[in-house]
Amino acid sequence: MRVIIGHRQDAYVGDEDWDALLMEHLEVDGRRYVIDRAGADDVPAIADLLADDVLGAARESDDLAPYEDAFLEIDADPHQFLAVIRSEGGAIVGTMQLTTVPGLARGGAKRLLIEGVRLGSSVRGGGLGTTLLEWAHEYGRREGAVLAQLTSDKSRTDAHRFYERLGYAATHEGFKLTL
Amino acid sequence: MRVIIGHRQDAYVGDEDWDALLMEHLEVDGRRYVIDRAGADDVPAIADLLADDVLGAARESDDLAPYEDAFLEIDADPHQFLAVIRSEGGAIVGTMQLTTVPGLARGGAKRLLIEGVRLGSSVRGGGLGTTLLEWAHEYGRREGAVLAQLTSDKSRTDAHRFYERLGYAATHEGFKLTL
Repeated sequence: MRVIIGHRQDAYVGDEDWDALLMEHLEVDGRRYVIDRAGADDVPAIADLLADDVLGAARESDDLAPYEDAFLEIDADPHQFLAVIRSEGGAIVGTMQLTTVPGLARGGAKRLLIEGVRLGSSVRGGGLGTTLLEWAHEYGRREGAVLAQLTSDKSRTDAHRFYERLGYAATHEGFKLTL
Repeated sequence: MRVIIGHRQDAYVGDEDWDALLMEHLEVDGRRYVIDRAGADDVPAIADLLADDVLGAARESDDLAPYEDAFLEIDADPHQFLAVIRSEGGAIVGTMQLTTVPGLARGGAKRLLIEGVRLGSSVRGGGLGTTLLEWAHEYGRREGAVLAQLTSDKSRTDAHRFYERLGYAATHEGFKLTL
């Protein structure tokens, strides 16, 4: 059983009430986790999670500087939410990046882009991924998004089944080009 | 032969020099076009282009209000560039939406998202699409993006060949979920 059991209302909230909701507590099969906006101190742990992946191992770098630069850009953009998931002990066990993109297509539909979803090996397969994506969808709805989209490497067939169980449909080809 | 033959340096430029380059002149097989940042007055023409499409016909709305609301959000977001392409006579013959997304994955790679690419029927098949995408890639590089990505409905096989000719690889499944 997975329940969002509370959220921190006393956090520094910036300009928008919604920011007060961004640190939330999740319970997944008796284990508690916190979803929080990533801070600069979290960058090394996020980079480790990205590298601890069959595709990420070849793509990621040992040099932290580009990650730190990217973090500053993400953190300054109000349409970005870089999440970390902490276990009760405080360790970062997961990450995902959410971007809200306003658009004219589909009747002026706002989209929620989901990128960089990674869970540490210690928490995979226990339902945290499902809870996390459901949280992301709720975040998107509160931001006014009516469509969630993500792309997943064609080799990640386990991930595809995971997204399909969540209701996603692989209706599109995902094209990439190195610039 | 396709050449970017100039750009308007005397435009109002806001805070960044690059904005001065955003209105550019393209020449495609002897016909000239201007790529420009869309204004509020352009919204009806963009909505018409989105609806004049085999998939868009069912997805788009006759009500302009949601498009106008979405335009205001796009226009206020410095990471968005909603482009219109004008013919020499001033008519809007195309549109695309470019979004730059900073990210930690792939060594802190910034991405260029391309959405809502539409050309009017009068200018399809003449090379304008290629010129437009090449312009988008150059825009992305100037914004610091190292990866361009887009998704295309699996039924749009002509579009897939077009993107592959431009160097794109369909490495990913594109998942969507209605929120």
